Amino acid sequence: MKAVGVVVEYNPFHNGHFYHISQSKSKTQADVVIAVMSGQFLQRGEPALVSKYHRTKMALMNGVDLVIELPYVYSTAHATLFAEGAIQLLDAIGCKSFAFGSEEGSISPFLNTFDLIHKQNEHYNSLIKQYVTTGISYPQSLFKAYEELRQKESAKTIDLSQPNNILGYHYIEAAKRLNLAIEPITIPRIQAGFHEDINPDSSIASATGIRKAIAENDSIENIKQFVPQHTFNELESWMEHYHTFISWEKFWPYLKYAILRNTPQQLSQYADVNEGIEFALIKAAKRSNSFNELMNAIKSKRYTWTRLQRMVTHIYTGITKEALHQFTNPTYIRLLGMSQNGQAYLSQHKKEFSLPLISRVASTKDDAMLSLDVHATDMYALGVELATGQKIATDYQTPPIRM
Amino acid sequence: MKAVGVVVEYNPFHNGHFYHISQSKSKTQADVVIAVMSGQFLQRGEPALVSKYHRTKMALMNGVDLVIELPYVYSTAHATLFAEGAIQLLDAIGCKSFAFGSEEGSISPFLNTFDLIHKQNEHYNSLIKQYVTTGISYPQSLFKAYEELRQKESAKTIDLSQPNNILGYHYIEAAKRLNLAIEPITIPRIQAGFHEDINPDSSIASATGIRKAIAENDSIENIKQFVPQHTFNELESWMEHYHTFISWEKFWPYLKYAILRNTPQQLSQYADVNEGIEFALIKAAKRSNSFNELMNAIKSKRYTWTRLQRMVTHIYTGITKEALHQFTNPTYIRLLGMSQNGQAYLSQHKKEFSLPLISRVASTKDDAMLSLDVHATDMYALGVELATGQKIATDYQTPPIRM
Repeated sequence: MKAVGVVVEYNPFHNGHFYHISQSKSKTQADVVIAVMSGQFLQRGEPALVSKYHRTKMALMNGVDLVIELPYVYSTAHATLFAEGAIQLLDAIGCKSFAFGSEEGSISPFLNTFDLIHKQNEHYNSLIKQYVTTGISYPQSLFKAYEELRQKESAKTIDLSQPNNILGYHYIEAAKRLNLAIEPITIPRIQAGFHEDINPDSSIASATGIRKAIAENDSIENIKQFVPQHTFNELESWMEHYHTFISWEKFWPYLKYAILRNTPQQLSQYADVNEGIEFALIKAAKRSNSFNELMNAIKSKRYTWTRLQRMVTHIYTGITKEALHQFTNPTYIRLLGMSQNGQAYLSQHKKEFSLPLISRVASTKDDAMLSLDVHATDMYALGVELATGQKIATDYQTPPIRM
Repeated sequence: MKAVGVVVEYNPFHNGHFYHISQSKSKTQADVVIAVMSGQFLQRGEPALVSKYHRTKMALMNGVDLVIELPYVYSTAHATLFAEGAIQLLDAIGCKSFAFGSEEGSISPFLNTFDLIHKQNEHYNSLIKQYVTTGISYPQSLFKAYEELRQKESAKTIDLSQPNNILGYHYIEAAKRLNLAIEPITIPRIQAGFHEDINPDSSIASATGIRKAIAENDSIENIKQFVPQHTFNELESWMEHYHTFISWEKFWPYLKYAILRNTPQQLSQYADVNEGIEFALIKAAKRSNSFNELMNAIKSKRYTWTRLQRMVTHIYTGITKEALHQFTNPTYIRLLGMSQNGQAYLSQHKKEFSLPLISRVASTKDDAMLSLDVHATDMYALGVELATGQKIATDYQTPPIRM
């Protein structure tokens, strides 16, 4: 059986995701779609709207055959590391290709960009350095250096101001750097409109827009047209049980306590807390009455919203630099769920997997990377309990979902 | 002006305390009563029913002239250290004597006990060792060794099975060991009955009994007869504002989060977390839905309720062994409140004080011991906010209360 891989968060699963899966499958003639999905904490450094088990169910009901978890180490990391973990896992589980959505829409400009940057690496780096010394930020310098490089190139290269192009580029770079045989495919992204708000005349919206619409009145009444029926039902059943969707605001009391319980010195041991930001963080937390207040008090050109969110994710979960940076590669394939088709794929191919497959955490021997996932899941569960008064399943209690 | 000192928690201030103050004053012919009072966390390792500012007000309205704070370092420590901090502070602020309540009721048996133990120290210690080897606990061995020593003594010694005799003995021992001129006085304790429950036919009850009666229906309706009118009014005004009294159960979500956010190794850095109890603590916290469940899951002969409460106090506040054990002596006299009489005493005597007097934390230079008090006060405030939705004053905002 032939498998195509996708890298996802499904926060929540929407019509654009559905389109992406069907395109990925038809374009690659794959028999199964395997999604590597972030767990309870996501790449922008925030807790998921609903738990990974609920998001796994949405995926399986909408055409994904296997859902495996992107470990916390990668799911909360910057794009380079995030992509490295995700693509390695898809390769380890035997995917012949992976498909990503992009604004660009065709694959050769991605490959051209990779060739350009890597052939002219020294020049590229010296350009970046030049721009940095002019006082602009590192990401901006990177972008300007790339634009300069690109002007002298005749082959078509990608526009790296587009968010999905950037992510796609990192996937390709990871696959190349790690010398993996897995082949990149890109699906043109159906535009969700220029801004992040939902458009009532469309059936496609970004996950950000959908979350915003949900957050506005903590209800799903305005998003029905943007998500498959199965997603809607799953969100509805979450709401019936938990009465609210998860966001940083819901975890705010714990986050405030976690920040203020520590001395600056203790705070600086957590992952991504660098350069003295701990002092500003404590000062801001003392004065803030909400997550939004905290973020607005400390965000700056240097500390973007996403960078700060990743930082507070690690403070919230209590995961230190030492714990997070001890790894070089994924150490397992954690199965969150499977369709019957996915199950058949596993039976047929699991001997070829290059990493151990973990179906049940409870019967797994200690693994340092897995223990961080289990811990982050516990911390998410505590936050949900604080916000809703309801208990939520932990990794030890949850076998893979079968559909 | 002549001052007598008392060591108190006033959790809450009751008729027995009122009696103790008037007796202390009349017995010593003192002009002012100075109370050294525990802050937000108490010697049995628990958060106070109401904040230290409210308890200060109760004290001042009931005849205390000056309230100074027993620093966190001492207020949450075992009896020896607790007594050492308290008596040193009373001496530093110029008290000629200190008065404690005891079951014994007269001072000479205390002094005889001190002489007996210190003259026969080697013999006493070898007896303790003998008992320990028979398998009984250290406190039990201590008691049995003392009883053996005492049998051969003709002078009247105290009964060390009585809780207030034990505490009184520690005060005297601290004063003697530190070679302080402050003179010990004891006031016979009016019995609150054999057990801890309140007795409706009496006007005297223990603070434990009163707290229990309050906790039963989170109201003060059953305690009116045991407390002065001023205490009742102050508790009533707390209740109007905060709608509940503070106990460990109210802080439970934060405590659970604080325990589970840490690895066993991280947990073991907090003060009083020793001998591998961190593993049992994490295991128990995972399964517990309340503070009471947690305590019952881990308490044992070796780990008494009080010892465990002190341990979780330090976990809750996030205060490490390193931070707590860096001190040898109190470094300041922190003024929480004063009557007009107390104010006159300060004007007249403050030049004689052997430690700096701190009236306003906000205008005080960094002091490591004080920073722990400020931090513990912040952590208490966060817990109160979680439990009640109401903010509570912190040390930076609170000048001494004047009455």
